[in-house]
Amino acid sequence: MSRLTIFGLEGIPEVTPGVDLAGLIADAARRGEGTALADGDVVVVTQKVVSKAEDRLVPVDPDDPLSHKPLVERESVRVLRRRGDLVISETAHGFVCANAGIDLSNVERGYAALLPVDADRSARRLRDGLRHRAGVEVGVIVSDTFGRTWRRGVTDVAIGCAGVAGVVDLRGTPDALGREMQVTEVAVVDEIAAAAELVMGKSSGIPAAVVRGVDPAWLRDGSVRDEIVRRPQEDLFR
Amino acid sequence: MSRLTIFGLEGIPEVTPGVDLAGLIADAARRGEGTALADGDVVVVTQKVVSKAEDRLVPVDPDDPLSHKPLVERESVRVLRRRGDLVISETAHGFVCANAGIDLSNVERGYAALLPVDADRSARRLRDGLRHRAGVEVGVIVSDTFGRTWRRGVTDVAIGCAGVAGVVDLRGTPDALGREMQVTEVAVVDEIAAAAELVMGKSSGIPAAVVRGVDPAWLRDGSVRDEIVRRPQEDLFR
Repeated sequence: MSRLTIFGLEGIPEVTPGVDLAGLIADAARRGEGTALADGDVVVVTQKVVSKAEDRLVPVDPDDPLSHKPLVERESVRVLRRRGDLVISETAHGFVCANAGIDLSNVERGYAALLPVDADRSARRLRDGLRHRAGVEVGVIVSDTFGRTWRRGVTDVAIGCAGVAGVVDLRGTPDALGREMQVTEVAVVDEIAAAAELVMGKSSGIPAAVVRGVDPAWLRDGSVRDEIVRRPQEDLFR
Repeated sequence: MSRLTIFGLEGIPEVTPGVDLAGLIADAARRGEGTALADGDVVVVTQKVVSKAEDRLVPVDPDDPLSHKPLVERESVRVLRRRGDLVISETAHGFVCANAGIDLSNVERGYAALLPVDADRSARRLRDGLRHRAGVEVGVIVSDTFGRTWRRGVTDVAIGCAGVAGVVDLRGTPDALGREMQVTEVAVVDEIAAAAELVMGKSSGIPAAVVRGVDPAWLRDGSVRDEIVRRPQEDLFR
């Protein structure tokens, strides 16, 4: 039977620049009951702790709630929309999101956290680190919380991945009635990030989750930049 | 520990108009090992089988791969973009998606399946049906596969729900560092739909999944139409 289990990793201490994040994750997984990392798991880590570990923190005026706005302009290569204080822009990574992915929540007062420079690379490093720390071959996803057009509410998506597919191409696979399918390229990396968010929450101090039971065929080299980020020329809304 | 389990329901027979879909789902869950429905579960069902059960099938020319295109125009209240045969439009429900949510995959040759008239209502009926068939109080989500702006690949989202929140509002909840959070309205109904897709796949004949372990606080009256569909006047991309 197809079955997936997702568990949040509790007890990860506050992450500081230069910390061994893979070690913290492996230790937290080992402490939980039945949660020690195993080959084939996918580890989802929030952008916020990855950015902290990589020292992507920038000082801002702690008394000015808009003090990160100049950073938003600097981190944007193209502004798509503005409304009040809200900026929807494209980042150097090719992500289109609010405020260039910068916010002040869950960051020490007086600092803003920028996105990782290259979150696919961050995911590869974590994957290598988990191999060394726990002796396991896992997929890694760095997740962040983005809004969407046309639908209210935010959902978590992947901004980087390693050892797990970005998109699984079901184009041409016969459907259940034996007919040739139309285009179905499923962004499984985003679906896994969304699933992980359900056990992490925003304020519960759970910055990482383990997804167990992912189709082994999906555990290949993957890249959010190469597979998920849509080029402006193939985009109808930019 | 926060833990979520998701399992696909196998052995659901081909769904035909007027069938007791709740009964089929309850039976399939009962046959699986440890999968019998329980209070607090969330059942995710694909739009395709809901549309079939509700007889939203329309005959089309089986030899013309574009035979459903007039239906797309008819089901659209506003066309946002066209490129080649692709139409991105707004439906009467307020969904913005490709081809008004109509496609031919997993539908009997010679037919196209329209979206349910009111998928929140479909979800409520299924929820009532599962209460009668299995004696359980569950949440129900009707899911469909939509593309996204700016990101490649499709993901499953909710088009209707009952007994489960559309959006969980974390606005004002202190974050892990005790700071007041900024706007964080999480579209958990879409994240649950995405998670369920990971065990359903597109061609595996698994049209329903059970998500177990959802935060009980989310199991309240919910509505995709009221909570998720963004009104045109509050939308920056329409």
